[in-house]
Amino acid sequence: MSENLKFAVIGGGSWATAIAKMLCVNLPEISWYMRNDAAIEHIQKYKHNPNYLSSVEFDTNKLKLTNNINEAVEYADYIIFAIPSAFLNAELQNLTVSLENKIIFSAIKGIVPETSLIVGEHFHIQYDIPYYNIGVITGPCHAEEVALERLSYLTIACGDPEKAENVAKNLSGNYIKAKISDDIIGTEYAAMLKNIYAIAAGIAHGLGYGDNFQSVMMSNGIREMKKFIRKVHKMKRNINDSAYLGDLLVTGYSVFSRNRMFGNMIGKGYTVKSAMMEMSMVAEGYYATKSAYKLNQGYGAKTPIIDAVYSILYEGKDAKSVFKKLTESLD
Amino acid sequence: MSENLKFAVIGGGSWATAIAKMLCVNLPEISWYMRNDAAIEHIQKYKHNPNYLSSVEFDTNKLKLTNNINEAVEYADYIIFAIPSAFLNAELQNLTVSLENKIIFSAIKGIVPETSLIVGEHFHIQYDIPYYNIGVITGPCHAEEVALERLSYLTIACGDPEKAENVAKNLSGNYIKAKISDDIIGTEYAAMLKNIYAIAAGIAHGLGYGDNFQSVMMSNGIREMKKFIRKVHKMKRNINDSAYLGDLLVTGYSVFSRNRMFGNMIGKGYTVKSAMMEMSMVAEGYYATKSAYKLNQGYGAKTPIIDAVYSILYEGKDAKSVFKKLTESLD
Repeated sequence: MSENLKFAVIGGGSWATAIAKMLCVNLPEISWYMRNDAAIEHIQKYKHNPNYLSSVEFDTNKLKLTNNINEAVEYADYIIFAIPSAFLNAELQNLTVSLENKIIFSAIKGIVPETSLIVGEHFHIQYDIPYYNIGVITGPCHAEEVALERLSYLTIACGDPEKAENVAKNLSGNYIKAKISDDIIGTEYAAMLKNIYAIAAGIAHGLGYGDNFQSVMMSNGIREMKKFIRKVHKMKRNINDSAYLGDLLVTGYSVFSRNRMFGNMIGKGYTVKSAMMEMSMVAEGYYATKSAYKLNQGYGAKTPIIDAVYSILYEGKDAKSVFKKLTESLD
Repeated sequence: MSENLKFAVIGGGSWATAIAKMLCVNLPEISWYMRNDAAIEHIQKYKHNPNYLSSVEFDTNKLKLTNNINEAVEYADYIIFAIPSAFLNAELQNLTVSLENKIIFSAIKGIVPETSLIVGEHFHIQYDIPYYNIGVITGPCHAEEVALERLSYLTIACGDPEKAENVAKNLSGNYIKAKISDDIIGTEYAAMLKNIYAIAAGIAHGLGYGDNFQSVMMSNGIREMKKFIRKVHKMKRNINDSAYLGDLLVTGYSVFSRNRMFGNMIGKGYTVKSAMMEMSMVAEGYYATKSAYKLNQGYGAKTPIIDAVYSILYEGKDAKSVFKKLTESLD
């Protein structure tokens, strides 16, 4: 029965905070790992995460907060990872507790830079977790709107539908509808690829292209994403489902998306380095671009948008002329 | 040869003005009909349409402006209609010149209220124009961005590809890319249906739903549109092409869309009548909703969004509770 299941959230950012909030609606207790001691102390004292979604109030009786990832993993049956993909590998190095028989859900939208794998694959290959114990939590969902309790739809993918159902049930609530899917590979690739298209949308905006072009970009983007994912893992899926198209749109059209913002700076003439410094962080899509591009060298899907973003971010090509050429391949 | 082809534009609004601008890039002369004498006089004197896209400067040597629709029709081989669908029937009543052998392109995104037909069908059924002489000009394209010369993509659909090509060629330019299609029915329905989804997006926004939900709405909207159009005219089409998905997005995500604005007022609690009075015009999607709903009584496609908008606009149902129920059928 689901009431006996124990959940842990790994991460202290906005998406982790949103997931902790959702779980607390349904569970008497969760374990919540974050590395920031000051944040833990603040939450324990003031019931709010000081850094992310700080409006959200937690019932601290429900929170087993810890700065030790092993405690969280030890505690839980279901472990939900919600940290930037760039930090995942380093965090996992701290694990001394085994992941055997643990059910791992990724709420990470990106590529593990060290292995160039999506998170599910990383756990499968590096930690021998069988695919029936791996799942994905995907949007379209800005964490900020979860804080505001605005209606949002999640898709919970897992090879084992019962496990997907368990996660879906414990995330659902008044303002969260979660449906399940068996497309664990496709949903995770979609969540990763959409960040590249968000960077592209940002570059276009930075270069002065308007809303007409933006819609053409998204229309081409979803077709490109479909081709790419089909090469990676062919199965029956409707690319216009919320987990794919919806997730692309919520990111591509969001002025708050860090990936779009990063692209916008590139379009306005910042170098990659200075855009990153200015943002004091790395946009997930930056790594995703390289991985997707390299991966596609083997697959050979026609991906002019990914290719364009890659050549700007990694080959130092001029954004304006790359996009001028890109507009010729779109329709 | 295309240089011998004569074009007329019917209408004095923003989209008609944008089309006149595009044609003037490629043609030595066009005929341009509008009923507003003052506007004609202003354009002749000051080279700008005083009411719409007033930043656009015309070479008045190229313009045969007229307030007599018969003069324009008489003059042209290709007649591009770009007036609100609500006025089309009345305008056509003034015709004394025959439409025989004329090639009619519709840049109207809506339903002719008197006949509940899309514009192509209206010309076909009411005026015996064969389908090989009927075409559609569709976006995604805000006229305002044409004025700003921002890159935009058009789709020109016609049963006769040569005619589509002739129109595409004469609209294309530095900032306009036009491709052709043979899906004259589907593109026109898409252009009409998207206004209903834009109203729905507006209602959702007015009711306080956020970006997460908006993306779910669009993702469900395009799936619904696909089902609907397939019932109307089954053929091989990619619903994610710019003419369908792109057009939906540019309208659904635009805060300038009159349909979205109309929906927003309904969501905020205005009655249909007061929203219309406030806007001092009728949104195309208002008529489209009724026609699509009625039409679908025969087709039986699953269209929960259209049904929801219909029940709010035409059955006086409460927007809040209708949308609450609608959220249950989306995923």
